[in-house]
Amino acid sequence: MSTSYSYNTRDLKFILKEWLPVEEIFQYEKYNGYYTIEDLDMMIDQCHNIAAEVIAADGDEMEEFGVKFENGKTTVHPGFTRIFKYIQENGWGTSNIEETEGTLPEILQCAIYEMFQAACPPMRAHALTSGAARLIQEFGSEELKEMFLPKMYDGTWAGTMCLTEATAGTDVGDILSKAYPTSDPRVYKIKGSKQFITCGDGDFAENIIHLFLARIEGAAPGTRGISLFVVPKYWVNEDGSLEDNDVVTTAIEHKMGLHAQPTAALAFGDNDRCRGWLVGEPPGPDGVSKGMAQMFQMMNEERKGTGMQALSVAANAYWNAKNYAKERIQGRSASDPKGPRVPIINHADVKRMLMVNKATLEACRAMIMKAYFYQDMFRHDPDPQRRKWAGGRVDVLTPICKAYPSDEAWSLVAESIQTYGGYGYCEDYPVAQAARDLKIYSIWEGTNFIQAQDLINRKWSLDKGVVFADFLKEIEDFIAAHQGNDNGFGLEFANLKEALSSYRDIMAAMAEYKAAKKIGYYQVLARRILTATGQLYGGYCLLDQALIAQKRVNELGPEHWDYHFYYGKVLSARYYLRNVVPNVNLVARLVKEGDDTVIEAPIEIFEY
Amino acid sequence: MSTSYSYNTRDLKFILKEWLPVEEIFQYEKYNGYYTIEDLDMMIDQCHNIAAEVIAADGDEMEEFGVKFENGKTTVHPGFTRIFKYIQENGWGTSNIEETEGTLPEILQCAIYEMFQAACPPMRAHALTSGAARLIQEFGSEELKEMFLPKMYDGTWAGTMCLTEATAGTDVGDILSKAYPTSDPRVYKIKGSKQFITCGDGDFAENIIHLFLARIEGAAPGTRGISLFVVPKYWVNEDGSLEDNDVVTTAIEHKMGLHAQPTAALAFGDNDRCRGWLVGEPPGPDGVSKGMAQMFQMMNEERKGTGMQALSVAANAYWNAKNYAKERIQGRSASDPKGPRVPIINHADVKRMLMVNKATLEACRAMIMKAYFYQDMFRHDPDPQRRKWAGGRVDVLTPICKAYPSDEAWSLVAESIQTYGGYGYCEDYPVAQAARDLKIYSIWEGTNFIQAQDLINRKWSLDKGVVFADFLKEIEDFIAAHQGNDNGFGLEFANLKEALSSYRDIMAAMAEYKAAKKIGYYQVLARRILTATGQLYGGYCLLDQALIAQKRVNELGPEHWDYHFYYGKVLSARYYLRNVVPNVNLVARLVKEGDDTVIEAPIEIFEY
Repeated sequence: MSTSYSYNTRDLKFILKEWLPVEEIFQYEKYNGYYTIEDLDMMIDQCHNIAAEVIAADGDEMEEFGVKFENGKTTVHPGFTRIFKYIQENGWGTSNIEETEGTLPEILQCAIYEMFQAACPPMRAHALTSGAARLIQEFGSEELKEMFLPKMYDGTWAGTMCLTEATAGTDVGDILSKAYPTSDPRVYKIKGSKQFITCGDGDFAENIIHLFLARIEGAAPGTRGISLFVVPKYWVNEDGSLEDNDVVTTAIEHKMGLHAQPTAALAFGDNDRCRGWLVGEPPGPDGVSKGMAQMFQMMNEERKGTGMQALSVAANAYWNAKNYAKERIQGRSASDPKGPRVPIINHADVKRMLMVNKATLEACRAMIMKAYFYQDMFRHDPDPQRRKWAGGRVDVLTPICKAYPSDEAWSLVAESIQTYGGYGYCEDYPVAQAARDLKIYSIWEGTNFIQAQDLINRKWSLDKGVVFADFLKEIEDFIAAHQGNDNGFGLEFANLKEALSSYRDIMAAMAEYKAAKKIGYYQVLARRILTATGQLYGGYCLLDQALIAQKRVNELGPEHWDYHFYYGKVLSARYYLRNVVPNVNLVARLVKEGDDTVIEAPIEIFEY
Repeated sequence: MSTSYSYNTRDLKFILKEWLPVEEIFQYEKYNGYYTIEDLDMMIDQCHNIAAEVIAADGDEMEEFGVKFENGKTTVHPGFTRIFKYIQENGWGTSNIEETEGTLPEILQCAIYEMFQAACPPMRAHALTSGAARLIQEFGSEELKEMFLPKMYDGTWAGTMCLTEATAGTDVGDILSKAYPTSDPRVYKIKGSKQFITCGDGDFAENIIHLFLARIEGAAPGTRGISLFVVPKYWVNEDGSLEDNDVVTTAIEHKMGLHAQPTAALAFGDNDRCRGWLVGEPPGPDGVSKGMAQMFQMMNEERKGTGMQALSVAANAYWNAKNYAKERIQGRSASDPKGPRVPIINHADVKRMLMVNKATLEACRAMIMKAYFYQDMFRHDPDPQRRKWAGGRVDVLTPICKAYPSDEAWSLVAESIQTYGGYGYCEDYPVAQAARDLKIYSIWEGTNFIQAQDLINRKWSLDKGVVFADFLKEIEDFIAAHQGNDNGFGLEFANLKEALSSYRDIMAAMAEYKAAKKIGYYQVLARRILTATGQLYGGYCLLDQALIAQKRVNELGPEHWDYHFYYGKVLSARYYLRNVVPNVNLVARLVKEGDDTVIEAPIEIFEY
């Protein structure tokens, strides 16, 4: 049994019930009356059971089966279809965002999806369908909504996002896909090829609704001229019948991981019979269109979602490693070297491998959940000022929440493999697959370099820098509020304060480089700065949580059944603030020194 | 085509011809007259061609085929057998160490094997056979030598090392395998199960000669009581005929990578018919035996070899990523943002990903080659004082050369995957497999934690600390020799000096912990200290090389065909000393702060 769902829900409950003021969200008009804080335990437990018993059930078989692509037909494992339908039909998946009855707040959906993703990493069809449906709902005509949404809500049809082409990934502005007007102004002829389309084909849905980027003939070059289309695999006639729409799967990728997930290369209109519905307006006389901006809504959702997926796969690997470390008997206790052999979880270096996972993953969970909290506030708070403020937080946190967890997951899962020793390298145990599955998260939905560019080129300067200054001031205020009142976290506060100061040094040095037009530094330093940002913010979140946890530790005492959870939160913060956060200072040193070796290096040296 | 040998030999030649005084080794009596520095280019080129044309030829098919285990029989891909025979039959593999005609110096063998391993990572049978044969040759009777060695030299038979058992990996002292005396004092009855035996079964050889650790009944507990046996898969009768020796393959592991390499679980003597030859003497009256010490000779060889393998797989991935980055057109030049699209190798962050690979891998190659240089000196220098001194260097460098490259390779190959973008996650390109293949190197031959323990518990204090002090003094002398004469490497020398000082702070802090009996720090800080050791020594080696390279840069001028190699060496040193080596200071800070969070953490917290 190589896949194994071993999640623990306690930290999720802590975040929802004790750390973030989720009750504020529940009081928004959209959600009011449907949820209370008291429901949360039950809901999380229920979804944890669904994850364990429904979602995780076919993991090994799905991994073994992979995806079959024969005679142009794409077949997924029946378990994939079963899970997709289950999520969609039972109200956990795609929903009408205008509904006011029982729609899940985003923060709850995030918590639930973290468990579902851990239980079945390849399953992503529900989330992509949600993103596609939301685009149609927000930007499409009533006609499009009626035509597509009901069957996307109930899991009959699925959705995708079609951006990448074989020769245009990161630079999506260079896509070659074209759209040509027809006699019907709503409908365009579509021609183009798309690549790496997640859940882009397969027998898990009767129709696949592609949200498709293309340039209408004559539109502006670059991203400005791109429009958004709904291009269904099967054209939907007025009577609801389906007919072939000249969307052909040309390949299913052989991926390193996520074997059960169909990743398709698709040819649209090779036989000139592919049509798509334009979403929104055609380009103006200046050739400018809104397709990219529209798609970015879905993209930004998927970016936070990607960080959550990296977290979920790495966390599941961590808990599997913990289970193994409790069972595996080897070596003797340091305090009793002649005594009996002990489970390896007693060895300090094994505890270190578990601790770096636990602390870092809790930091990731904290920042991701906080981003979703702001997302709910941004969408539904009655106060427009607060909505705007929360939107700024979402903007800042999106690249951090995408890239930091997906970068760290690779080294964290290596520690989980190492905990297993040689067994960790065997596919009969779950951690090797976890490593293979999670590698994609640093790449898709915009590589982590793109996230880092987004952070330092756009998010730092959003609204003339006001948004990011306020983001840092939250940390500064937190430190100031506990000056002389550090609850025993003196070293942790000192390290956070030092890191914040170092971070401001980083920003100042980068501003100088910009003023001196040394733009190369914005490339070569970007990813280290993004990591430092994640470490600073993660340290702040963990310390904020630890203050609550320490209080509970003091109240409960060591005999209480819940003591070790809270004590663990305290130790996570201590470990992270002492061992991880000081890296921000090292990054500051490197940024200030401004090594230009890479910038100046001629490409010929890499032959050697 | 997912496997692809894309090696460049220039750095190997530089090390052999310009950096290390290899001519000293060639003058040793054992090698004298057989090699000259002038032969090196031809020999490296020849082996590079063998690697490309012979060793790499079946890579994709071998990966696809894996290893078949049916009806108790283990079948490897014919390419595996072909490569093994080729290496053995053509003088590149197992050889008689007492031969004086044309035996390869270890440093040359290392250079050649680096290419061979890059061309076919799963091939390891030749090296294991060499290690096993050497054990027989050094410690076995004339009878054993005559019986086994000729057929091991010519590739008819293969060898293994059998240490690990299902319940005893890292703590090999707890093995359960037993040996019982027979009427023949040379021969014992063998009973036990071994696990993770690399090349432990397969049709690539007519017989497999297991060098096997077991405890003779009544011997001392722990590693002290372990003896070494030769246990052939097929017993060799006096007339040379073979008969079944009750060695049964119970499983072939399904590994994350190295799919073509047979990793066997073996049962010895389940039917009471397994016999083995004792190597050396039986345990003395105190129950103490020399088996573990004997095996450690092979183990130490394999440790350096493991570092070399990690280097070779990661370096091949780097050069593949470089090739891809030269071909892949995407984005525009920073200096001409409206110009044509360019190959991504022109983008500064892509150059950064290549540079961190290039610099770190060159540091790894430098330290590994230097270790093999010392190995030759240790074995063959006429001056016993120099032999002893060189042996100390080998002792110190072994854990560093095993663990530092195999730790770094995981993050380096992630940068190579990232360079490929989405294609890097597809098995049609070589980097995903490289990641899967190289993960084992941090685990086998003693986990990297064990290496770190070996470094700080044994190697630091070898000969009362004299050996390690001399190792550091070499770096100190190097810095002192260039004081006021830094050839433009002022910042690099300053960083190296600071790192050396930090490293001494680390050792001082650890000594204080030991004096205070805070032994837990020797566990939780060990791996970070090992990394810091690799970075300090790697930085020293690269800077030492850069001084030679800078001179050549000045002599040759930018138009010379070889200019970019030397200029690249200069930039590798600059990059590594400026961006990697400063981490030693961060480690020193963490060591001095001495966070005890992990040590004190109760294991219950890891439930969450």
